[in-house]
Amino acid sequence: MVKVGIIGATGYAGAEIARLLLGHRDAEIKWLVSKSFVGQQYEDIYRNFFEVIEKDCSDISIADMAKDVDVIFTATPQGYLQGILTPDILDKCRFIDMSADYRIKDVAIYEKWYGIEHHSPELLPEAVYGLTEVNREKIKAARLLANPGCFTTCSILTAYPLMKEHMIEKDSLVINALSGVSGAGRGAKVANLFCEVNESAKAYGVTTHRHTPEIEEQLGYAYGDSVTLQFTPHLIPMHRGILATETARLSKKPDGTSYSYDEIKSAYDRYYAGERFIRVLKKGMCPETRFVEGSNYVDVNFMIDERTGNIIMMGALDNLEKGAASQAVQNFNVMFGFAEEEGIDMIPMVP
Amino acid sequence: MVKVGIIGATGYAGAEIARLLLGHRDAEIKWLVSKSFVGQQYEDIYRNFFEVIEKDCSDISIADMAKDVDVIFTATPQGYLQGILTPDILDKCRFIDMSADYRIKDVAIYEKWYGIEHHSPELLPEAVYGLTEVNREKIKAARLLANPGCFTTCSILTAYPLMKEHMIEKDSLVINALSGVSGAGRGAKVANLFCEVNESAKAYGVTTHRHTPEIEEQLGYAYGDSVTLQFTPHLIPMHRGILATETARLSKKPDGTSYSYDEIKSAYDRYYAGERFIRVLKKGMCPETRFVEGSNYVDVNFMIDERTGNIIMMGALDNLEKGAASQAVQNFNVMFGFAEEEGIDMIPMVP
Amino acid sequence: MVKVGIIGATGYAGAEIARLLLGHRDAEIKWLVSKSFVGQQYEDIYRNFFEVIEKDCSDISIADMAKDVDVIFTATPQGYLQGILTPDILDKCRFIDMSADYRIKDVAIYEKWYGIEHHSPELLPEAVYGLTEVNREKIKAARLLANPGCFTTCSILTAYPLMKEHMIEKDSLVINALSGVSGAGRGAKVANLFCEVNESAKAYGVTTHRHTPEIEEQLGYAYGDSVTLQFTPHLIPMHRGILATETARLSKKPDGTSYSYDEIKSAYDRYYAGERFIRVLKKGMCPETRFVEGSNYVDVNFMIDERTGNIIMMGALDNLEKGAASQAVQNFNVMFGFAEEEGIDMIPMVP
Amino acid sequence: MVKVGIIGATGYAGAEIARLLLGHRDAEIKWLVSKSFVGQQYEDIYRNFFEVIEKDCSDISIADMAKDVDVIFTATPQGYLQGILTPDILDKCRFIDMSADYRIKDVAIYEKWYGIEHHSPELLPEAVYGLTEVNREKIKAARLLANPGCFTTCSILTAYPLMKEHMIEKDSLVINALSGVSGAGRGAKVANLFCEVNESAKAYGVTTHRHTPEIEEQLGYAYGDSVTLQFTPHLIPMHRGILATETARLSKKPDGTSYSYDEIKSAYDRYYAGERFIRVLKKGMCPETRFVEGSNYVDVNFMIDERTGNIIMMGALDNLEKGAASQAVQNFNVMFGFAEEEGIDMIPMVP
Repeated sequence: MVKVGIIGATGYAGAEIARLLLGHRDAEIKWLVSKSFVGQQYEDIYRNFFEVIEKDCSDISIADMAKDVDVIFTATPQGYLQGILTPDILDKCRFIDMSADYRIKDVAIYEKWYGIEHHSPELLPEAVYGLTEVNREKIKAARLLANPGCFTTCSILTAYPLMKEHMIEKDSLVINALSGVSGAGRGAKVANLFCEVNESAKAYGVTTHRHTPEIEEQLGYAYGDSVTLQFTPHLIPMHRGILATETARLSKKPDGTSYSYDEIKSAYDRYYAGERFIRVLKKGMCPETRFVEGSNYVDVNFMIDERTGNIIMMGALDNLEKGAASQAVQNFNVMFGFAEEEGIDMIPMVP
Repeated sequence: MVKVGIIGATGYAGAEIARLLLGHRDAEIKWLVSKSFVGQQYEDIYRNFFEVIEKDCSDISIADMAKDVDVIFTATPQGYLQGILTPDILDKCRFIDMSADYRIKDVAIYEKWYGIEHHSPELLPEAVYGLTEVNREKIKAARLLANPGCFTTCSILTAYPLMKEHMIEKDSLVINALSGVSGAGRGAKVANLFCEVNESAKAYGVTTHRHTPEIEEQLGYAYGDSVTLQFTPHLIPMHRGILATETARLSKKPDGTSYSYDEIKSAYDRYYAGERFIRVLKKGMCPETRFVEGSNYVDVNFMIDERTGNIIMMGALDNLEKGAASQAVQNFNVMFGFAEEEGIDMIPMVP
Repeated sequence: MVKVGIIGATGYAGAEIARLLLGHRDAEIKWLVSKSFVGQQYEDIYRNFFEVIEKDCSDISIADMAKDVDVIFTATPQGYLQGILTPDILDKCRFIDMSADYRIKDVAIYEKWYGIEHHSPELLPEAVYGLTEVNREKIKAARLLANPGCFTTCSILTAYPLMKEHMIEKDSLVINALSGVSGAGRGAKVANLFCEVNESAKAYGVTTHRHTPEIEEQLGYAYGDSVTLQFTPHLIPMHRGILATETARLSKKPDGTSYSYDEIKSAYDRYYAGERFIRVLKKGMCPETRFVEGSNYVDVNFMIDERTGNIIMMGALDNLEKGAASQAVQNFNVMFGFAEEEGIDMIPMVP
Repeated sequence: MVKVGIIGATGYAGAEIARLLLGHRDAEIKWLVSKSFVGQQYEDIYRNFFEVIEKDCSDISIADMAKDVDVIFTATPQGYLQGILTPDILDKCRFIDMSADYRIKDVAIYEKWYGIEHHSPELLPEAVYGLTEVNREKIKAARLLANPGCFTTCSILTAYPLMKEHMIEKDSLVINALSGVSGAGRGAKVANLFCEVNESAKAYGVTTHRHTPEIEEQLGYAYGDSVTLQFTPHLIPMHRGILATETARLSKKPDGTSYSYDEIKSAYDRYYAGERFIRVLKKGMCPETRFVEGSNYVDVNFMIDERTGNIIMMGALDNLEKGAASQAVQNFNVMFGFAEEEGIDMIPMVP
């Protein structure tokens, strides 16, 4: 059994990691850390765990926990882990970090978009970006795993094959993404009250959302050159789900003609046909978040608009699963040599 | 492997049975029957099953299917199974019926409340009412299992210990229950459109709801005498969940004094402490449907009002799970000798 | 023009009063007070008022405001007004208070249920309980108007005619009420976050909800004797609306026979046929909150259960309108001699 | 009093027109036509109108109605009015049509996108496109008013000033729009059931949505040349609201430098500062549909992304109001010489 600690266990992502690991054959949760609820019973905070988890919320130090477990999941605010992690601690156990602290290789970009100083930039080179389907090999040996963001996972995987194959013009990408409210976390803010969010929709973080440089960096690796794109997130009234709608100009083929549906489809299949958790839908079907809810799936598809010369790519995932917790467990499985689907082979629940 | 057929597989309950059985070690789905979608791929109707179920919807006859499988789940409208089932068919395979057709022992009551004639009353005596925790022993040998209704399961289990122990006045029970919209099924009716249901609440079936006689019959067995009660269901804007709030007059103890919290709590524990799927909450906590959503749990609790002499009992379950599909699988497990939690040990998903 | 001040103008009820008064021919809003947002522009907090209200949030003292306006609406927490109001201030202007401070005549009951001391009990005798349809005459001359609670207005009006006419057994009343989330106010609490409230239902305040004594007091006046009842509120995922389902034992007529539908209907009509804002629905129709949303209407109806001897009465209103703001304006109209429907004759908005 | 008939009165838009006209000083509803509910009382279908509207649903012919009223609102399916309207009928009364029948001047484009033949193309030249703020002068004399679509009104008004002023590159526009479910109408379709729509999001009509040519035509008039754009609508779980997010490349100024915030803002103000129902928000504020719900407002704003050279324009309106009914009444007011805000000066209701 792999011994696990979770820091930030009372946030939505932390609680979801706990839930998934309880169903994992080879994981044993040793510590649940939550600064806000130290000493309280976990089952009193999330009563879905009543009679399931009988632990208290602890405030054990990260250094002490590192000696006691094999891996620590940190579902903590931006800046927490990079401010506290040391090579010494990292020698003792592996880390799967849900924050952006080790996702962006260029410290200057991190510090500019997040507005905080990075205190352990020396660990960045070894950090592995945990987009499982893209970085599987590197993840196997990772000690410090930077789990991708929810918008990011969805946005990247939706466009990845076409960017990789240079089938779209690299700087033409316009990503409009919709998010459920759980992405905003469990903090007590007026803006996230039921009566402020329900029956409404809005864009937010326009031109400034922090997932932008992360998407650009990863799609840049895919393309083999820097990518600049427009990312506009929206908040809509539902619990879970990310839907990314990505419009780009289709490149021309070397002979000057246009790519056909079949050629684009083949590109997607080339990368995803063997992937259990990425489903390229049938022609004409648009991804819907309900059909991935509660699962590790990403559903993607595309439509070509011959009238405009654009392609519209679409992707859907559950922001707390493939966008956070279940991808973290997927990476955990890769890191520790378990079957990749262990503990995360849920079929989406409808309705 | 137990071979399974599902009739009514494209309704919400039927689809949920399919989803649960896919995760069951010892069940194999052979047939998915849906009259409305014959010949269509199941994964096109419920796209959460894309790349998961590759069967078409069939219209195989019940007689033919009975020869090919060990058990048939019927998630069909009232009157379907009783109109078609014969002793002959029943000799060939076991049945788990989600409708009310074999729930009520008294044919006259069935025909009065449902307004339809019963065509196989000769099968009623052997039918077993599938409230697992109450009828576990009888269920083991059942060939014809009448799976309880959603309101019914919740209403009965919430009051069962106190009715059984005569701790409440038997005819004083007022049950107000709230239901999510999935209980209304997947039929295309104006009344169930998003814009008719969302942001509203209403009572319905007042004085006439068909689950009334079913609750009365079962609580009557518990009490050992006929029980008359007031059941008022309500529709509220959420997908899943039943919340029953049950008000009754507390009986006096033989010595004329009142029952204490601890005495009532002991009564609940006497019946439920050993039950994995019934959770009696801590003192002061009210059940919430979100904390059982997607699981086979029923959460119950109670509060005594010394001011009025009443007790308020509360119960929460997921109408598509313990109120339909997962209880059906629980009964399947008991009938076929599997571990009772096999395939239905989901932890509720929050949020 | 009647000059108006609103204290607590950035809560949901306060903002609704502002919205209604902007459409009132004879009211002029002079002050919007909000301790949390002093100096901020009101239109920045509630952007529905952008380019409509150009005032800042003020922190003017109640004494100063009283000199400057004709009436003050206080949409403030329990205890605020009773702790600050003096006979001197009350000589200068009239008050319409949305809190419970002056609703309950018996100080001991107020202090017990609310757990706070009452600092101006000498003003209680002159306070008028603002259930407009019941107390219209007294309201005309009121200087201190105690505007009823949302659950209270709905619960009382639903049963009022039958209690008044002794057609139900006075202590048999079981009230189950459902509330939209706006009733919980705009405070930043985890419990009211979208992801905690949406897709769930729960009872709360069971046996202890503070509206209980208020309902009992008013129905007691109607009956002419003390009334004890069971009141159980529930929270459900919608913005607005109260739905009360009230079960009671029907009294027998003096000759021992049972009341008929027509007799009960006549009782309702006797009190409500002339009331513009109370609609007794047609036989068989259950009130739905969506059909009163955004309006000052209360929709009521009832069904007799001959099988059990009970009557089920139902009422629906919008908790921010007839349950708070629009009833306050209705009372304002009565107090200042305007047409009772001035500013509040909205037709409910569906969907 | 202007005498009014409404055809299609039991759809959501038709009912909203009825509701608005009831509050209009100078309009009198004479006929409510609904093929599906002939002979039924209108208040039984929409119980918000209980005791408010006492008419039955009629099936009077359009020719007969035209003789009896001054104006007919047709809230009917595509193809209805163009298939039945004749010059003769149009001589007798004015028409405000909510469908697309007379919105597109080029019959071939109409027939291609809508897949139906146009039976009265001879009336197209005189039809006036009812985007009030853009076509006010022409609307005054209109006999046949083509009321714009919901996505269309929002999409056009959001980009209009910049397109008119050539401040964006005309063919670079990518419009992603979100719609509440009421836009799908009140037909009994599985796809619009609560349990199919709630807690989910999807794109639909990708590359093929019929509002595309309407937006292109009108923005083409503004620009003075043909415009080709990408329009992708989405369905999200709320009743009302359209949110359009429009990304375009900013043009360079004649001197080769970039437009500043102030220059763009001035362009918006030039067209909208005098418009009561179009609100250009303060710098940095994103439109939210809740802040326009129930009103005739369109809220618009924009953000410049210097990093990408794009501008993101955003617009929000209520699809049943400015996107349908209240804009129809606004046009009615202009056509009949009433104050433009008569009957439609509602302040948005929050929450």
